[in-house]
Amino acid sequence: MSEPFWKTAISRVEPNKIIVRGYNLMDLVGKYNYADLTYLLWRGELPPANHSRMMDALLTVCLEHSLNAPSVDATRFVASSGVPLQSAVSAGIAAIGEWHGGAIEQAAKLFQDGVSSATQNKLSLKDTAAQLLQEYTDRHDKVPGYGHPTHTRDPRTQKLLEIAEQSKISGKHVELALALEAMTEKFFHRHLILNVDGCIAALISEMGFDWRIGKGFFIVSRTPGLVAHAFEQMYYDKPYKAPHWKEIVYTGVAERNAPERKENAA
Amino acid sequence: MSEPFWKTAISRVEPNKIIVRGYNLMDLVGKYNYADLTYLLWRGELPPANHSRMMDALLTVCLEHSLNAPSVDATRFVASSGVPLQSAVSAGIAAIGEWHGGAIEQAAKLFQDGVSSATQNKLSLKDTAAQLLQEYTDRHDKVPGYGHPTHTRDPRTQKLLEIAEQSKISGKHVELALALEAMTEKFFHRHLILNVDGCIAALISEMGFDWRIGKGFFIVSRTPGLVAHAFEQMYYDKPYKAPHWKEIVYTGVAERNAPERKENAA
Amino acid sequence: MSEPFWKTAISRVEPNKIIVRGYNLMDLVGKYNYADLTYLLWRGELPPANHSRMMDALLTVCLEHSLNAPSVDATRFVASSGVPLQSAVSAGIAAIGEWHGGAIEQAAKLFQDGVSSATQNKLSLKDTAAQLLQEYTDRHDKVPGYGHPTHTRDPRTQKLLEIAEQSKISGKHVELALALEAMTEKFFHRHLILNVDGCIAALISEMGFDWRIGKGFFIVSRTPGLVAHAFEQMYYDKPYKAPHWKEIVYTGVAERNAPERKENAA
Amino acid sequence: MSEPFWKTAISRVEPNKIIVRGYNLMDLVGKYNYADLTYLLWRGELPPANHSRMMDALLTVCLEHSLNAPSVDATRFVASSGVPLQSAVSAGIAAIGEWHGGAIEQAAKLFQDGVSSATQNKLSLKDTAAQLLQEYTDRHDKVPGYGHPTHTRDPRTQKLLEIAEQSKISGKHVELALALEAMTEKFFHRHLILNVDGCIAALISEMGFDWRIGKGFFIVSRTPGLVAHAFEQMYYDKPYKAPHWKEIVYTGVAERNAPERKENAA
Repeated sequence: MSEPFWKTAISRVEPNKIIVRGYNLMDLVGKYNYADLTYLLWRGELPPANHSRMMDALLTVCLEHSLNAPSVDATRFVASSGVPLQSAVSAGIAAIGEWHGGAIEQAAKLFQDGVSSATQNKLSLKDTAAQLLQEYTDRHDKVPGYGHPTHTRDPRTQKLLEIAEQSKISGKHVELALALEAMTEKFFHRHLILNVDGCIAALISEMGFDWRIGKGFFIVSRTPGLVAHAFEQMYYDKPYKAPHWKEIVYTGVAERNAPERKENAA
Repeated sequence: MSEPFWKTAISRVEPNKIIVRGYNLMDLVGKYNYADLTYLLWRGELPPANHSRMMDALLTVCLEHSLNAPSVDATRFVASSGVPLQSAVSAGIAAIGEWHGGAIEQAAKLFQDGVSSATQNKLSLKDTAAQLLQEYTDRHDKVPGYGHPTHTRDPRTQKLLEIAEQSKISGKHVELALALEAMTEKFFHRHLILNVDGCIAALISEMGFDWRIGKGFFIVSRTPGLVAHAFEQMYYDKPYKAPHWKEIVYTGVAERNAPERKENAA
Repeated sequence: MSEPFWKTAISRVEPNKIIVRGYNLMDLVGKYNYADLTYLLWRGELPPANHSRMMDALLTVCLEHSLNAPSVDATRFVASSGVPLQSAVSAGIAAIGEWHGGAIEQAAKLFQDGVSSATQNKLSLKDTAAQLLQEYTDRHDKVPGYGHPTHTRDPRTQKLLEIAEQSKISGKHVELALALEAMTEKFFHRHLILNVDGCIAALISEMGFDWRIGKGFFIVSRTPGLVAHAFEQMYYDKPYKAPHWKEIVYTGVAERNAPERKENAA
Repeated sequence: MSEPFWKTAISRVEPNKIIVRGYNLMDLVGKYNYADLTYLLWRGELPPANHSRMMDALLTVCLEHSLNAPSVDATRFVASSGVPLQSAVSAGIAAIGEWHGGAIEQAAKLFQDGVSSATQNKLSLKDTAAQLLQEYTDRHDKVPGYGHPTHTRDPRTQKLLEIAEQSKISGKHVELALALEAMTEKFFHRHLILNVDGCIAALISEMGFDWRIGKGFFIVSRTPGLVAHAFEQMYYDKPYKAPHWKEIVYTGVAERNAPERKENAA
C-alpha cells in the first residue's frame, strides 16, 4: 500500500479542534508558555520544570544582535524595497546559515559524538577533548562553537551557564564543551571562548535534543528581532537602501570595447 | 549632515555587551520570558503583567495548524528538496500573506479606524459597525478577520477572549469586533465568526500596538511549527515531494507542432 | 464536481515527454531562444520576429546594476552566511519589491488605463497625460516609472527605445509614456526622466502583456546577476558580511536598569 | 589597509553608464542575447559562437516541468497566500536544493575530478568510470546525475547531446559521463540513465565552468516557469491552496489530556 501524500505526526486539525502532539492546543495555551510549546512541537512531550526554564533562556539569549549580523542586514535591505513584512523576515531567516547560527548544529554533533566516543572508548572527557582538537588542527579546521569576532567573553554563554546551574542542567556534554575551551590555547595558540552557539549546543545536547534541530533555536530566537528590524526599516527609515555608487569599489577588468561575435572555441 | 547608513533604535552591540531598547539583554534573560522580550522589541517597553500573559497567549494560539496551511505546505516542499533547515522555514514565512495571517493587519486597521471614527463622529460602536458592514457589502468586499474555511467556531478566538477577560484586557476595539460579528448575518446572510486573525487584531489594538505589526504575531507564532515540519519532512519523510504526473490535470491547449519562426507582428 | 487540486494550463509532463503550452519542449530548444520561450510561457504563444528581438532586449537591459540595488545587497549578505547558492539568489528575488522593479507593473497599469481612458473619452494622449499628472500632483504622489537616483538620462531607456524603433514596436502606450515625461517639468518643477521601469512598462503594454506580469521581466533579467554576486561573495569574499559594531549608530533610548515586573496596565 | 566593504569585479555603475565585466552593457544589448550575457556575467568573457548556442540550450532545456517539481509546488502554495509575485518565485528558487537541480554541481565535480584523476593516474576513462562506480556502491551512495523518477530516457539529455554534437562541444567529461551511464547496470543491477542534471554537468565541465556554479543553470532555467506558475496561481486559481483536513493523515500520538506541570528532569 502506498504512503499517504499528506501526513504528519505533529498535529491534527478538524473543525473546531486543533490537536498538537496529542494535546488539545486550547488546553495548553495560557498554562504553558511559548518556550514550553516549542519544546512540545520539537520533542513530542511537554518539558519538565527545569527544561522549561532553560528552554526559555535558550530562545531569548540570541534575541537581538543589532545590524552586525548578516540576517538583520538582509532583512533591512529587503524591507527597504517595498515588500510586505513577511518577505523581509523570510530573507533574514534564509541567512541563518553555517556561519551564522549554524555552529549550533555542528557543535552539538561534535559534543554528542564526543561523549559517545568517550564512553565507548573508556576515555576521559579531557583526553577526548585533546584528541578532538588534535584532529581539528591536523585538518586546519575551525572548531564549531568557539571564538567570536566581537565578544572576548560572550555574555550569552555566561548567562546560559548560570541558568543551567540553577536549573540543574549539567553533564558530560557541558563538561566536554568546557574541556575543549580550556585547551584551545594549547592547540590554537590563542584562547577561543565557548561562544553562544557552542553553549546552546552543549545545553541542548544535555537536554536530549537531536543535534539536527540546532538551528531551530537560533531561528526562533532571532525572529522577533527580524520583525522589529523589518518594521523599523519600513516605517522609520528611507526606502531603497543601497550604498552610493561612489562607495562601491570596482575590482574587475578595465573598460573595453564590445567585440564582434567570436569564432567557435577549439 | 547626511544620515548614517547603519542605524537603529532597537539595540546596540559592543564587545561583551548587548543592549536592547536600553536594557542589558543579560539582565532580562531568565527574568522575562520570550513573549515579554518580543513585546519589548516591538514596543520599546517591557509589558505590564496583564499584557505579558496576553502576549504569550497571542504568540501560542496560532502555533500549529497542520498541513492545511499554505505556509506549512510550502515549507514541506522546500524541505524535501535537499536544503538546510532555515531555507524551508524561510519559504514558509514568505507565505504569511494577505490571505494567511494578513487579516490581522487589515482587521486591526479596521478596528482602530472604526473606534477613532466612532469617537470623532460621536457614533455608538453598534452604529459604527452597521455603517462599516454597509460599506463592505456595497463594495462586495470581504470583512477581514471574519469567517473560517474549517472552523465553525474558532477555538482560538474563544481561548483568547477567555484569557483577555482574566487579564482585564477589554475595551472599544473588542466591543467593535464583537458588534461586527453579531451583525454579519444581517449583512451577509450567514453568520461569519470572528476568527483568530480578527480576535488577535482586536486584542493587539486594545493593547496599543500599531496595526502594521500585525503579521509579526502570526510569523512568530508559526515559526516553531515550521521548524518542526521542516525537520519532520527532512528526516522522516521522502525526499523530492511532488504529485505524480498522473495526478496533475493539464488544462492548456492541445498538443501541436512547433511552428516556423513567425513574421513581425502588425 | 470539484476542481482538481493539481492543475495547470502551462505544461504537461509524462514519461519522456514535456509539453509546454501545447508544444513539445524538445522541438523548440535550439530553434527558439531563452527570451522566446519565456514569451511562450507567459503569453501562451511563440513571439513574432520583432517581439522576439524586443523580448530579448527587455530581459537583458536590467541584467546588472552592481551593489547599488537592495536585491544584490540582500543576496550578498545571505551568501556570506554559509548557505547554498539558491538561498542567496532567493533572498535577492524577494527584494524585487514596489520600490525596486515594481514600478514596471504600476507604470504598465498607468499606461494601459491611460490609453483606454483616452480612447473612451476621445481625448488626445497629450491631454490625457496632463490630466494624469494633475491627479498625481493633487495626491502628492510619485508617478511610477519616472526619475532615477543615479542616472540623469537612463541609458537603458535610450537603448530600449532604439531597439523598439528598429523592431517597429510603437504605438499609443509609448506615446503616452513620452508625453508624460515631456510634461513632468511643468507639474513637478523638475524634469523626471522616463526610467528603465517606465520604458519596459510602455513596451510590454505595446506588445500586449498583462501589466500584472511586469515584475517578471525584472526578476528574470536580474537572476543571472544575482547568481554571479552570490558566487563572488561565497568564493571570493569574506564570510559573515556585516558592518563593524563601531559603524552602527544607535538611536534608541539610553542605557537603563532592568525593572521589576510591572503591575497590570490600566 | 583594510578591504573595502562594498566591492565587486562584476560590474560598475556610474551616472548614465553601466559597465559589466569591462563592457558598456548598452553596447551589448541587442547584439548579444540573454544566454550570451549570462555567460559573460559568470565567466567574465563573452562566449565563442558554439558556446553561445550551447549556453542557450542549457538555459532552456529545464524551463518547465509542470507541478511535479517541489520548486513549482512551493511557488504555488506561496502564491496562493496573497503575496506579491516575487515572493512566490523566491520560494520556488529556495527549493532548488541538493535533490532538485543540485545534482548538476555534484555531477560536475564528479566529472571534473574524474577526468583529472584519469589524466594524473594515466587511467582510461572507462577504467576510471568503473573505479568511481565501485566507490559509490561500496559507500551505498547514489551517483549524482543518473536515474529519473518519471523519465526512462530523459528527452532533455538527448536534445542537449544533439546540440552539443552540432556545436562541436565534446571531450573527456562527456565521455566519462557516458562511460558511467553504460556501466550503471553492472554496478546497480538496473540501467540508470544520464539525466538532464548529469548531462548539463558534463557539458558545462566541457565548456570550462567551475562546478560550483552548476545550480545557477537550473535556477536561471526555471525562473520564467516559476513566474508563469505564480501568475497562474494568483489570477487563475483559488486563494489559500491547502489540502482539506480530511485528506491529511495524522500519524502522531493519540489524543490525551493536558498534564500538570512536570517536576524537574533527573
